[in-house]
Amino acid sequence: MKRMQAEVHVKEILQTGAELTDLALERLLPPGDATPSSIHRAMRHSTFAGGKRLRPILVMEAARMIHCHQNGGGELPEGVEELGAAIEMLHTYSLIHDDLPALDNDELRRGKPTCHVVFGEAIAILAGDALQTLAYQTLSRLRCPAMAAVEIVRLVADATGTVEGMIGGQVLDLEGEHSKPTAESVDAIHRAKTGALIRVSVVSGGVYAGGDREDVQRLTEFGRKAGLAFQIVDDILDVTQDSEQLGKTAGKDLASDKATWPAVFGIEESRVHAAKLVDEAFAALAPYGGAAEGLKAVARYLVERTH
Amino acid sequence: MKRMQAEVHVKEILQTGAELTDLALERLLPPGDATPSSIHRAMRHSTFAGGKRLRPILVMEAARMIHCHQNGGGELPEGVEELGAAIEMLHTYSLIHDDLPALDNDELRRGKPTCHVVFGEAIAILAGDALQTLAYQTLSRLRCPAMAAVEIVRLVADATGTVEGMIGGQVLDLEGEHSKPTAESVDAIHRAKTGALIRVSVVSGGVYAGGDREDVQRLTEFGRKAGLAFQIVDDILDVTQDSEQLGKTAGKDLASDKATWPAVFGIEESRVHAAKLVDEAFAALAPYGGAAEGLKAVARYLVERTH
Repeated sequence: MKRMQAEVHVKEILQTGAELTDLALERLLPPGDATPSSIHRAMRHSTFAGGKRLRPILVMEAARMIHCHQNGGGELPEGVEELGAAIEMLHTYSLIHDDLPALDNDELRRGKPTCHVVFGEAIAILAGDALQTLAYQTLSRLRCPAMAAVEIVRLVADATGTVEGMIGGQVLDLEGEHSKPTAESVDAIHRAKTGALIRVSVVSGGVYAGGDREDVQRLTEFGRKAGLAFQIVDDILDVTQDSEQLGKTAGKDLASDKATWPAVFGIEESRVHAAKLVDEAFAALAPYGGAAEGLKAVARYLVERTH
Repeated sequence: MKRMQAEVHVKEILQTGAELTDLALERLLPPGDATPSSIHRAMRHSTFAGGKRLRPILVMEAARMIHCHQNGGGELPEGVEELGAAIEMLHTYSLIHDDLPALDNDELRRGKPTCHVVFGEAIAILAGDALQTLAYQTLSRLRCPAMAAVEIVRLVADATGTVEGMIGGQVLDLEGEHSKPTAESVDAIHRAKTGALIRVSVVSGGVYAGGDREDVQRLTEFGRKAGLAFQIVDDILDVTQDSEQLGKTAGKDLASDKATWPAVFGIEESRVHAAKLVDEAFAALAPYGGAAEGLKAVARYLVERTH
């Protein structure tokens, strides 16, 4: 019974969070007919391609937790969905560029043709660039004190940069395609390529809500472990699901000898490791007691999901 | 005699400004051997390819003018070269992506092989991305009050975005390649593609130095006109210089039917228009009296240069 309630609860969090994010993105992206229209249509094509908005939902639940811990009540800090939208823009920009012929050369993403397939390579490159820019246009207009906004820009930019950030992970991934993956290389790539943006989602959400240095440390610890668990589950799904369920070409990671957890450790050991990481991540949230329930429910969903 | 002194003066401003910018870029870019090294070498290849650092110099002279107007003395506000370096990173990222095979397909830039020629397309795309990111990592660490830093992020991100910003200009330029350029289309492309970054260089320099709303308005007016004059001169040089003097393929704009001033108005009328714009730009700086001399000298150089 308790389990069923938790499931209802997380479904509601996921649905409301995705809706709030979509509304914010709809407001923040220029209309598809605004000049120059080709790039605005391209930005919208990839932004509204059926993403689950997991990163914005992590932003919101982390912000809700800190807000609730400080003030009681369960509501979201006003305007936090715009921070979530900015992080989703950065995620989308990285997918558009990752899918380009010169990089992963993917023609499908979530079952839909990728940006360059529809709009051509030139516009896809610029649409990715523009989503990165729009993320900072958005961060510079957040409804939080200027000190917090500058800290958020710093955290987000660092997490998406070349030194242990998202772009660094993309480069390590590219470079590693032709050598045998090791436990160490898999870990370094995941930590940077996917982990850093997941981590900064929860940390920046906490800063937005007024979190102090201790909150930032706890959320960093939580985000680091939950982010790695998320990527391990992603890798497992790539092996165990077929392309239709996954909405992209399944088994591609294994075929291209990419560094993944199941390739190095096998599926069972990978599952055990992901579950262990989530337990460790939860321990970092102990000081928040019941206020952490929403964030924990989302993290549990991330590693128990089947698609 | 007065003329000669002015020339000595502007040469000194240009040289000192370029040196300060290079030192800041050297500090701010990760070393070429930092992991993952390929992207850091690519970022450095394009950043240190012999650029004249005109935008950072505009940042510094605008900041010096506002600082001097408020406090007297002629020195630069501390740390302003880091703002200049961030804007140079954004300029460099746009050049790397503009040169890609899917866009302008240029193999030479300032006489050197372009980023994708040396490092491949994948790394060139990511190096451009990373320079944009590093610009915001840099802006989030500026040595100015948080309120000013957030305003600078907003101004810079807006100026490089799709709506009347740099990326918007790139798209208009791409889309216009196959239709006959008109006075209106040339103006819109220039204002966005090059003008917006020149304009935000002087405006953000003023904000960094503590400029108020009136200063921002004057610098916006000055930057808009000086930026357009700069681009007109660039177009004229593309027609009148040969490739060796220019360090890139000369006459390419005309050959590809790109929207340029000389193509629409002829060289002589374009020169007259550029000179008129600079005079109008100077009028906006009248309230600063002698404090504006450095900024005016740089603007004069921009339209009188022969390469």
